[in-house]
Amino acid sequence: MSYRFGPDYPDATYVPHDYPEQLADLGEIQMNYAVAGSTDAQPLLLIPGQTESWWGYEQAMKLLAPDFRAYAVDLRGQGRSSRTPGRYSLDNWGNDLVRFIQLVIKRPAIVAGLSSGGVLTAWLSAYAPPGLLRAAYYEDPPLYASEVRPACGQSIRQSAIGNIFRLFSAYLGDQWSVGDWKGLVAAAQSVLPKEALAMAGFGEEPSQNLKEYDPEWARAFWTGTGTAGCDHDQMLRTVKVPVLFTHHFRRVEEANGVLQGAISDLQISRVRALIEGSGQRFAYRSFPQMGHAMHRIDPALYVATLKEWVAGLR
Amino acid sequence: MSYRFGPDYPDATYVPHDYPEQLADLGEIQMNYAVAGSTDAQPLLLIPGQTESWWGYEQAMKLLAPDFRAYAVDLRGQGRSSRTPGRYSLDNWGNDLVRFIQLVIKRPAIVAGLSSGGVLTAWLSAYAPPGLLRAAYYEDPPLYASEVRPACGQSIRQSAIGNIFRLFSAYLGDQWSVGDWKGLVAAAQSVLPKEALAMAGFGEEPSQNLKEYDPEWARAFWTGTGTAGCDHDQMLRTVKVPVLFTHHFRRVEEANGVLQGAISDLQISRVRALIEGSGQRFAYRSFPQMGHAMHRIDPALYVATLKEWVAGLR
Amino acid sequence: MSYRFGPDYPDATYVPHDYPEQLADLGEIQMNYAVAGSTDAQPLLLIPGQTESWWGYEQAMKLLAPDFRAYAVDLRGQGRSSRTPGRYSLDNWGNDLVRFIQLVIKRPAIVAGLSSGGVLTAWLSAYAPPGLLRAAYYEDPPLYASEVRPACGQSIRQSAIGNIFRLFSAYLGDQWSVGDWKGLVAAAQSVLPKEALAMAGFGEEPSQNLKEYDPEWARAFWTGTGTAGCDHDQMLRTVKVPVLFTHHFRRVEEANGVLQGAISDLQISRVRALIEGSGQRFAYRSFPQMGHAMHRIDPALYVATLKEWVAGLR
Amino acid sequence: MSYRFGPDYPDATYVPHDYPEQLADLGEIQMNYAVAGSTDAQPLLLIPGQTESWWGYEQAMKLLAPDFRAYAVDLRGQGRSSRTPGRYSLDNWGNDLVRFIQLVIKRPAIVAGLSSGGVLTAWLSAYAPPGLLRAAYYEDPPLYASEVRPACGQSIRQSAIGNIFRLFSAYLGDQWSVGDWKGLVAAAQSVLPKEALAMAGFGEEPSQNLKEYDPEWARAFWTGTGTAGCDHDQMLRTVKVPVLFTHHFRRVEEANGVLQGAISDLQISRVRALIEGSGQRFAYRSFPQMGHAMHRIDPALYVATLKEWVAGLR
Repeated sequence: MSYRFGPDYPDATYVPHDYPEQLADLGEIQMNYAVAGSTDAQPLLLIPGQTESWWGYEQAMKLLAPDFRAYAVDLRGQGRSSRTPGRYSLDNWGNDLVRFIQLVIKRPAIVAGLSSGGVLTAWLSAYAPPGLLRAAYYEDPPLYASEVRPACGQSIRQSAIGNIFRLFSAYLGDQWSVGDWKGLVAAAQSVLPKEALAMAGFGEEPSQNLKEYDPEWARAFWTGTGTAGCDHDQMLRTVKVPVLFTHHFRRVEEANGVLQGAISDLQISRVRALIEGSGQRFAYRSFPQMGHAMHRIDPALYVATLKEWVAGLR
Repeated sequence: MSYRFGPDYPDATYVPHDYPEQLADLGEIQMNYAVAGSTDAQPLLLIPGQTESWWGYEQAMKLLAPDFRAYAVDLRGQGRSSRTPGRYSLDNWGNDLVRFIQLVIKRPAIVAGLSSGGVLTAWLSAYAPPGLLRAAYYEDPPLYASEVRPACGQSIRQSAIGNIFRLFSAYLGDQWSVGDWKGLVAAAQSVLPKEALAMAGFGEEPSQNLKEYDPEWARAFWTGTGTAGCDHDQMLRTVKVPVLFTHHFRRVEEANGVLQGAISDLQISRVRALIEGSGQRFAYRSFPQMGHAMHRIDPALYVATLKEWVAGLR
Repeated sequence: MSYRFGPDYPDATYVPHDYPEQLADLGEIQMNYAVAGSTDAQPLLLIPGQTESWWGYEQAMKLLAPDFRAYAVDLRGQGRSSRTPGRYSLDNWGNDLVRFIQLVIKRPAIVAGLSSGGVLTAWLSAYAPPGLLRAAYYEDPPLYASEVRPACGQSIRQSAIGNIFRLFSAYLGDQWSVGDWKGLVAAAQSVLPKEALAMAGFGEEPSQNLKEYDPEWARAFWTGTGTAGCDHDQMLRTVKVPVLFTHHFRRVEEANGVLQGAISDLQISRVRALIEGSGQRFAYRSFPQMGHAMHRIDPALYVATLKEWVAGLR
Repeated sequence: MSYRFGPDYPDATYVPHDYPEQLADLGEIQMNYAVAGSTDAQPLLLIPGQTESWWGYEQAMKLLAPDFRAYAVDLRGQGRSSRTPGRYSLDNWGNDLVRFIQLVIKRPAIVAGLSSGGVLTAWLSAYAPPGLLRAAYYEDPPLYASEVRPACGQSIRQSAIGNIFRLFSAYLGDQWSVGDWKGLVAAAQSVLPKEALAMAGFGEEPSQNLKEYDPEWARAFWTGTGTAGCDHDQMLRTVKVPVLFTHHFRRVEEANGVLQGAISDLQISRVRALIEGSGQRFAYRSFPQMGHAMHRIDPALYVATLKEWVAGLR
């Protein structure tokens, strides 16, 4: 049996949420998003991680609503946003977000993103047009570690999650064209360590978030087409706004050097050096017991951490 | 002796022009441009070809001034605009132009570009945010023929110009880091057909336009890093505005299939089919005796052709 | 239901044949082969095409036996020979054949191969150690047309068969790791022209020859990892033995330039020029009505053509 | 002034040596080599490192002569052996060596190689035909560390030597086509740490060994075309003969993780695990004060180490 999910199969794919969803026409894509908070509050753009959709922020949005106008989006290839075969790349995802801020938010925003979304907050902090951003929160982003050929430390091949992407791509196929979920689970069990399996949440059926995910993302990261032309070293040298970095669970396996978690301490130290070298404030908070998605696992701590940092920005 | 040119060597590189130049801060880059015509006329964005700078349009601008507000730009890696090593790609060039229209022109524009600039008008016609473009003029663009692995017809390896790019890259180096002009001329003479040499204008010294060119462009096209992730077939299927295509000199060598000129008749027929399939008007004008840059070779004919087409757009 | 085939599933994969099979240890791989003819006859090495195994030559071998000592082999990734993930390339296949001639045949051989196997006869004619080959028969090989970035004519993307390889790779997976035959057939029906479907022989169940095929071959050709580092232009310039080329059905679609069949007339003319330029005799026989695998479709004509050419070699 | 070196400029390139040189015709290439020792002694194949020629072993050969029949070779792209544009890869270098052993040595050999040559001894120990090798000595080889996307530890981008290769390629060009030595030295001074400069021996004029080096090697390693299709992890799993590994100076920079030297302790531990997992003896000798080329720096220690290990092989 083959599974088919995505915008062409809406009944099989999507479920209702607490916030209404709407589409913004950005030219190449339709971007799906939800909003919380009053229209005159500080705008906050929330960018999900890979295999997540906007509603990963649903609980956090409730806590953010009193203080922010929070926009949570689906990137191209996520949730209800468009699928764009062959065109998943940091530069395209990043420019979609630029357009979203210009066309929908229309005011200088704070941006916060998890994982790949955190890499995109870094992208925005370096490459967005002037005046679009106030500050950027990188939530546990795999800087360097999601690159095929990084300047520093583990590459995606040397991270636990990299091999999951390889399997997602092979067994699910671009746009769920293959959809062999059982084959994926079987392959994962024989290949991956338990931590990685848990991290990716394999079970009898695809989880709701995976249904909404275009597996071509995984191919784009594993093969490097999605990260080509956007060297992290070069990007971090030109950051133009203050940065908050929360660093969650990570461990480098002594035996083989494999990275468990999103980014190593060595890689962070280089991130810090480059951003501070660009003249920007770099606030670093380490949460070594925290799982990857603090905004889902502990929304209160996430919001408190964010608010404390924002308070210090003035 | 090694030649060094570019923004780091302004005295050696640049000369004065009839229109004043200014820089727009687009975030990642500073974009250089010049303007002609009255502020309330129809905006027209002019995009130079590879190895050209904005002032390739200087004569045309004088003829356009009575009817248009004409903005001629330098793309990243051209003229006085920023150099961005490792980041020359259609998606980045295209999004720079989106930002330029938003931040500088601020009204719906007609876009016109030559050669690689013509590919970028195609990019804009497919991928720009809604409402930014009125129409797009593709001036002799190497659609398909500038791709490494095109869906149709000759690739860049099978075009005369492709091999020139290969030599530019090897002998001049990214950002003129090598700068071996004499080595380039010698290599070109032993390798390339005369037409190609004439087309590229090799001489004792680098021509003014080449001084202002970042040879990394050539590498990006020859190796395909600059065109990756932007399949022309896919792009042309989603064109959203009316198109004018002027097709200049071209010949397919019977003996070896090599393309002299920018794009073959076979490739054009596919461009037409896809654009018409997207529901847009496709105006085709063939000038088989015309050299590649009609806007420089015959500015009057260029402007007349453009104006006639614009008149029919209403 | 997922299909699993290959050496790890011998009962599901293999069937008996008229000639006994044996394995030669070549170091990296075990090469399976069968032999016909007397030990003192002229040695003839038969190389199957992609998706074929040695027994595609079974009928031809019966006709060849009176005149030749015929060795029909399975290449790595075919039939009962080893699977070598990540290591399918022309240079590796070619050097396997060199070793086979040295270790098993042990005398100067005539080599004959179909399709990809024909490209390998070209490889052997250019790159084998001195004294190993007497002459080479290229049976309808996709010279240039199986390259990602050929010097001349259609690339693999512009050939009908190329898109089949893309689907083989996506739906069957390296080493049949995915094995979604029904997904493959469904995808093929919506994407490919009827000729291509017929050519690839899709049906309810995988055909016997496909069961014996490692679909990673298809990935290696479609992505170009298998043909990298072996430019056909360069290879053909150094051919060192006489060549027979039989050219079967081919047609270039006027509307889109797509190649039906293995190699175009334009490409052949370049093959001829380069081989004759290398000082070797080039015998060309055109069979425009003949399907791709003459040795299976009309073994008598195949053998007659081969024998006539061999008679003329002295 | 442009420098031109290589087989096309023999007077400018080569100097006499203590052992006579001769060429072996291997089919695709002519391989240059020299021999020492008596014809009935144990055959020993000596493989130079990158930027070295066979005569890097000249002093060692004198010490080896009483006990071995020592063959020191130039690989394709080194010394007086052929240049093969576009065809420098581990699989091609490795198969050249297979042919050399078969055609020239003709008996089971011990193979010993430095650096890239050491990677090739690993290649031979995994992929040579049966019976060709007795044992393999890997002299400080950059296993993993010369790969673009290694399974373990630093990639070539993260090693000091990698950036030198990048500059060799840009300023010298394939086959010395650019030959800008002064540009190379200037670029190296502004970019590389002193250790790396010393390691590469930059001076007023190209050193003798660099004159004999085809800079396309450097491009093949830096871009990964030379190492593609030969994953080290996979190769080391199938080693078939006993191995000696001498590990010389190395240091991982704490601040940035850059590897000084050829291979890290972490990478070695994986090499050992895989080779022992393949059932072969793995003799490891660490010389942390020794420079990269022990066979040149301390030929007596090199030969003593080799002889001691060989004595233990019986």
